[in-house]
Amino acid sequence: MKLIRFGEPGKEKTGIILNNKKYDTSAFGEDYTEQFFETDGLTRLAAFVKEAELPEVAADVRLGSPFARPSKIICIGLNYADHAHETNAPLPPEPVIFMKATSAIVGPNDNVVVPKNSVKTDWEVELAVVIGKKASYVDEADAMDYVAGYVLHNDVSEREFQLERNGTWDKGKGCDTFAPLGPFLATADEIEDPHNLHLWLKVNGEIMQYGTTSNFIFNLAQVISYTSQFMTLLPGDIISTGTPAGVGLGMKPPVYLKPGDVIELGIDGLGEQKQNVVAYA
Amino acid sequence: MKLIRFGEPGKEKTGIILNNKKYDTSAFGEDYTEQFFETDGLTRLAAFVKEAELPEVAADVRLGSPFARPSKIICIGLNYADHAHETNAPLPPEPVIFMKATSAIVGPNDNVVVPKNSVKTDWEVELAVVIGKKASYVDEADAMDYVAGYVLHNDVSEREFQLERNGTWDKGKGCDTFAPLGPFLATADEIEDPHNLHLWLKVNGEIMQYGTTSNFIFNLAQVISYTSQFMTLLPGDIISTGTPAGVGLGMKPPVYLKPGDVIELGIDGLGEQKQNVVAYA
Repeated sequence: MKLIRFGEPGKEKTGIILNNKKYDTSAFGEDYTEQFFETDGLTRLAAFVKEAELPEVAADVRLGSPFARPSKIICIGLNYADHAHETNAPLPPEPVIFMKATSAIVGPNDNVVVPKNSVKTDWEVELAVVIGKKASYVDEADAMDYVAGYVLHNDVSEREFQLERNGTWDKGKGCDTFAPLGPFLATADEIEDPHNLHLWLKVNGEIMQYGTTSNFIFNLAQVISYTSQFMTLLPGDIISTGTPAGVGLGMKPPVYLKPGDVIELGIDGLGEQKQNVVAYA
Repeated sequence: MKLIRFGEPGKEKTGIILNNKKYDTSAFGEDYTEQFFETDGLTRLAAFVKEAELPEVAADVRLGSPFARPSKIICIGLNYADHAHETNAPLPPEPVIFMKATSAIVGPNDNVVVPKNSVKTDWEVELAVVIGKKASYVDEADAMDYVAGYVLHNDVSEREFQLERNGTWDKGKGCDTFAPLGPFLATADEIEDPHNLHLWLKVNGEIMQYGTTSNFIFNLAQVISYTSQFMTLLPGDIISTGTPAGVGLGMKPPVYLKPGDVIELGIDGLGEQKQNVVAYA
């Protein structure tokens, strides 16, 4: 299934994509929340969709994040060798973890706001995994059983805040609008091989990032198992799995986003996003 | 007011402390959530408490976190000069921010679990601020208007995970049970001067930390204003304001928690916590 949420920000209704058309599932009566995933909501939703007469939704409706705000967004840093190289970072001997404030989540095509006082706002196309059930000390061999699905994520980052302002990376990762998610959550069965997906990102029509998840340093099972050694992953939590080369920080000289820029990005099987970059108003 | 939540983990009821006795406020009909704080729930709760006949609760009832899981826990690192010194860290030129997974939250007297494979689990008594309304780009002069109240927090930390395992501090801060909160949330009016509170922590009866919030490097208004430049603080979010000297990492040689240890901690006006340290089972 391809889950969506649509409508006014903060008041999104649930929906689903079938044969490239959007349908309203709000009669199902549940938002796509931690509790939904925890109680096998995906199975219940599939049964509902099979029986129900679903109202179609306008193709151009605003999309929100395809699931409700999770308890946390975990990000894996430097998980593609080419990206580690372009940022002059050594290859990590074990996964780098940082966190992104969930208040940063927006819909896939909402504006990206350059924060006040920001001069180094950057882009990062990423494959994000959505956790389906509580994961604590999970073995690698079992780790993929904990995946509810996948979603496209632009891990927008402010490099000065992240790297030059003292403290952890979190300062430059959780600014408002820095986590566009969607257009849809693809359930795990929709993606034949998550380790063989192309991902790309353009700024103003120019291709900046083009990579493949076959180049992960740490694969999904490793990343899920590893993270679960440090904290319990809750249903609906996200692990964003890192970005390939081609970010603004890696350019010579570096190039950063400015109001008026347009970002487009996509991953095989997970759709596309398009964001207008705007100034803080 | 002093807000509490009590009962079985995950099924806590809301309550309040009046004249050192605990009362059930579940007839109020709302948990102490983001929405509660956002909609001026504190004022509505005060009116309810004034009129209602509240059932008393057993003095020894289990306490949970005094408010529901927030969207985020922001922590300020190295905010007391003596603690920065003991950990051989330079004084920060601006606040150090890191994040703690909210899945780490437990009640004030619940067990602290030493993670599997942990040899450096440590303690940190801290004053935590609970945010009362959305805070984005807040001026220092207005920052204290955004405080709903205060709560005692043991910012339990795994030093190897935090400092030696690659990546940000978050890896050693968000382990399950690493955020005991409570016993109660004291509303802002209960604390005359949050910059003049003594805080202390004992392990097995021996005093390890004894400090005062008058020694903050960055005061509460600075910390709230500063954090709000990087992300929106939501109602119910927590900023934990750092720990004074006396952590295990700072001992020569370092001393860490082991199963069987007992941690006790407190802050003037915010009550006390007592945790048994146990092995992961």
